[in-house]
Amino acid sequence: MVNTTNHSPKSIREVEMTRVEGPQYYGRTDMLAREEPLEVKLAYGPPGQRQRRSLAVTMRTPGQDEELAAGFLFTEGIIGKASDIKEMRHEGQALAPESSENILLVELSEELPVDFDKLNRHFYTSSSCGVCGKASIDMVRSVSCYFPRRAFPKVTPEMLLSLPGKLSEEQALFECTGGIHAAAAFTSGGELLMVREDVGRHNALDKLIGATLLQGQIPLREQVILLSGRLSFELVQKSVMAGAPILAAVGAPSSLAVELGEEYGMTLVGFLRGKSFNIYGEKHRVVLA
Amino acid sequence: MVNTTNHSPKSIREVEMTRVEGPQYYGRTDMLAREEPLEVKLAYGPPGQRQRRSLAVTMRTPGQDEELAAGFLFTEGIIGKASDIKEMRHEGQALAPESSENILLVELSEELPVDFDKLNRHFYTSSSCGVCGKASIDMVRSVSCYFPRRAFPKVTPEMLLSLPGKLSEEQALFECTGGIHAAAAFTSGGELLMVREDVGRHNALDKLIGATLLQGQIPLREQVILLSGRLSFELVQKSVMAGAPILAAVGAPSSLAVELGEEYGMTLVGFLRGKSFNIYGEKHRVVLA
Repeated sequence: MVNTTNHSPKSIREVEMTRVEGPQYYGRTDMLAREEPLEVKLAYGPPGQRQRRSLAVTMRTPGQDEELAAGFLFTEGIIGKASDIKEMRHEGQALAPESSENILLVELSEELPVDFDKLNRHFYTSSSCGVCGKASIDMVRSVSCYFPRRAFPKVTPEMLLSLPGKLSEEQALFECTGGIHAAAAFTSGGELLMVREDVGRHNALDKLIGATLLQGQIPLREQVILLSGRLSFELVQKSVMAGAPILAAVGAPSSLAVELGEEYGMTLVGFLRGKSFNIYGEKHRVVLA
Repeated sequence: MVNTTNHSPKSIREVEMTRVEGPQYYGRTDMLAREEPLEVKLAYGPPGQRQRRSLAVTMRTPGQDEELAAGFLFTEGIIGKASDIKEMRHEGQALAPESSENILLVELSEELPVDFDKLNRHFYTSSSCGVCGKASIDMVRSVSCYFPRRAFPKVTPEMLLSLPGKLSEEQALFECTGGIHAAAAFTSGGELLMVREDVGRHNALDKLIGATLLQGQIPLREQVILLSGRLSFELVQKSVMAGAPILAAVGAPSSLAVELGEEYGMTLVGFLRGKSFNIYGEKHRVVLA
């Protein structure tokens, strides 16, 4: 993996604003994280019967769109490996060629069966147990193919406590905009492998997982993933899909995030800041002195 | 408006975890913000031709589901006033009655035309300018009916600086779980009117707007809305729908959030913490000494 965040000027926009400090106020230029819609379009089916379909529009920070799309398709269970994608390219609409920056066409492999019903996993009405956290967890099981439970990298508390500082050093976009989420991959020894950033935290993690997928690094059995924010169900679900056994976050987990992590034998680390943290679920991966 | 967060025991779940502090570790019980799916179903159409349709599933913190649904329907432009809703009730599936906690049926007024195309506003393919921030902003214009530009409550820097502390005092769920977002409404004099909390920040704001809608308080022309996190496009869009001219946040705004605020003549306040803040857009509502 490449140790880079690949920042681009496209990720930042300058705006004029008024800074108020005590009784003082003055005009300033501020750097903001850019937020723009990205439409992901799929082309799929056998030769001669290729079809196109708009899959989703997500609000994201421009840059690394291919990684974002690959990660999203993988964590949603639409593709299972990098070679399921033949090609990705930005493509504008005929009447609005300037929109190409925000439209990404993904050419899927001709052999890949595409089941659009899977894409409706946010609609739980066909689940036998109805709409509940349990059904949400079952839904993950139906699409995941890696098993974090069987991976046992060992980490130390010192290593975990060192991660937020290492992320801050790398997080160039956060530094100047203050408005961005990050997802990072580390070795179990604490070496930073990769950072991805986005205004949406699910996008930051999709970019990270997509980048590792495109580089043939999935499943992430020996890695530790660190998130700059909180741990929601969706973020644990994406980590399950990537086969990552240790997921750490600076913020708090939700109840369903912990339940999903337990179901998969994961080690969730929350409130990782200062000199302490909490372990939810499988604690034996953290080797205490 | 009622000065209450209406916390319910349903909003919190206790879990066992391991706390690691320096060389020490010990088992503890932790309180987590609950996260569960809510399916919103609509019943609509004239008598004799009523139809039902599942509208969306969102991951939310249980509690105030009616407010969440009302706020979501209003900020998405499906309803325009409280009386467009005849009734809301939790309703389980026949085979899974226990799921009723997570399914809310909204009976819409028989006269209300329901345009499901509007619900596809996340798919921008029909927009003449293609997929871009400008098209996203145009999309808001097509559904909004209030104009924050025409509202001019006046606030002082001291009043704005006092808001985060007042929110913290009220934010009971944040205190014990550390994992929740809040949205609050204040008078222009700084009096706290209402707080709503959720694992999803868009849900917290939908609950706040839904509660004010159900109480007949929309548009929020004289109020200031405070958010505990960052300011994304989606959160500004919801505030535009509610007609709120001043939107403040403890965190940073995104570029598109600022662009949308400018388009509507709003006053966005970012980085509101300590003794300073930034004003993006219309600064004349903040009366400097």
